[in-house]
Amino acid sequence: MNRNGLLIILSGPSGSGKDTILYELAKRERDIKISISMTTRKPRDWEEDGKNYYFVDEAYFRRKLESEQILEYAQYGSKFYGTPKAPVDIWLAEGKTVILKIEVQGAEKIRALYPDAVSIFLMPPSLQVLEDRLRKRETEDEDEISRRLTIAVGEIKRSLEYDYYVINDIVGYAVSDISAIIQAEKQKTFRNKNIISEVMNNA
Amino acid sequence: MNRNGLLIILSGPSGSGKDTILYELAKRERDIKISISMTTRKPRDWEEDGKNYYFVDEAYFRRKLESEQILEYAQYGSKFYGTPKAPVDIWLAEGKTVILKIEVQGAEKIRALYPDAVSIFLMPPSLQVLEDRLRKRETEDEDEISRRLTIAVGEIKRSLEYDYYVINDIVGYAVSDISAIIQAEKQKTFRNKNIISEVMNNA
Repeated sequence: MNRNGLLIILSGPSGSGKDTILYELAKRERDIKISISMTTRKPRDWEEDGKNYYFVDEAYFRRKLESEQILEYAQYGSKFYGTPKAPVDIWLAEGKTVILKIEVQGAEKIRALYPDAVSIFLMPPSLQVLEDRLRKRETEDEDEISRRLTIAVGEIKRSLEYDYYVINDIVGYAVSDISAIIQAEKQKTFRNKNIISEVMNNA
Repeated sequence: MNRNGLLIILSGPSGSGKDTILYELAKRERDIKISISMTTRKPRDWEEDGKNYYFVDEAYFRRKLESEQILEYAQYGSKFYGTPKAPVDIWLAEGKTVILKIEVQGAEKIRALYPDAVSIFLMPPSLQVLEDRLRKRETEDEDEISRRLTIAVGEIKRSLEYDYYVINDIVGYAVSDISAIIQAEKQKTFRNKNIISEVMNNA
């Protein structure tokens, strides 16, 4: 075992606030690395390659997939979204805390590949709040909002597959909860089996 | 299941600093209840009944034992030390976080009775530091120090039975680690199965 870092899976319905939480968490916690997805869709105006996504063409994506360099992926319409393997493994070997923002299906695959991963489900305080948030964005039409709410219900029903709930009512509290989970998980005995011999031998 | 609280088992060798840590933790965290042991030994000058221990006679202790009102106990010489059951169950039903300061043997019994209990092993930074701390107290003679160090080695070897390590090098950090563990454990999905229906139904 050379995986000394901590792998965190963060899932939650569309509108649960994953991006806001991760942005605040990254400001507060050092040594956290947030995985950037690879996609074959075109960048939007404000998006930067290597910051919001790695923007690649389909041939490149398929080559990475075939060489098992994509940990999990999903296809929406004709576009692919995937999690690149190399940065995750490098950061874990460096002892970093790595966060994957991923949906429920993908989380299942990551857990199978990294059994020591810790999974967090970001929960809206209620479905009503989720709906209000989606509507306030004004980026989705009513059909799309209703579609996302249906998906949200399905995801919430599967949330017991996760290790932890974090309720995103007040952003600061949710960030503090995730920080506490990271701090606690680093103390788990099974991640620190070397401590016994260190304590015995250190002068 | 009516056990809505969180039961924490805290163990660690003599000299690891359990009492200091608990004192600081209780100042910082509300809703924490620290279990008080029952003993048949005589109180020392500075000790108060119901604060340091419940001081009882042997007949009373044995009655409590027979009626299964003692969760775990140990005998040192002719004196008994035990953990009363009633306060633990009352506090857990009230949703409190209950901390039991207990040695390794007792921890095993508590885990069997309360499978959802969370166990923390308070680890000295090194055996040398532990020895120095025991010597600085000036309450034990050399034979007793050496006896306690032998016991400490045995306890440290069994520490992987615990869920978490907290290293007591700097008290403030150790207290912060325990706080994080409590905060994280309260978020565990299996302790919050009701959240799904709450989120679905809340307007």
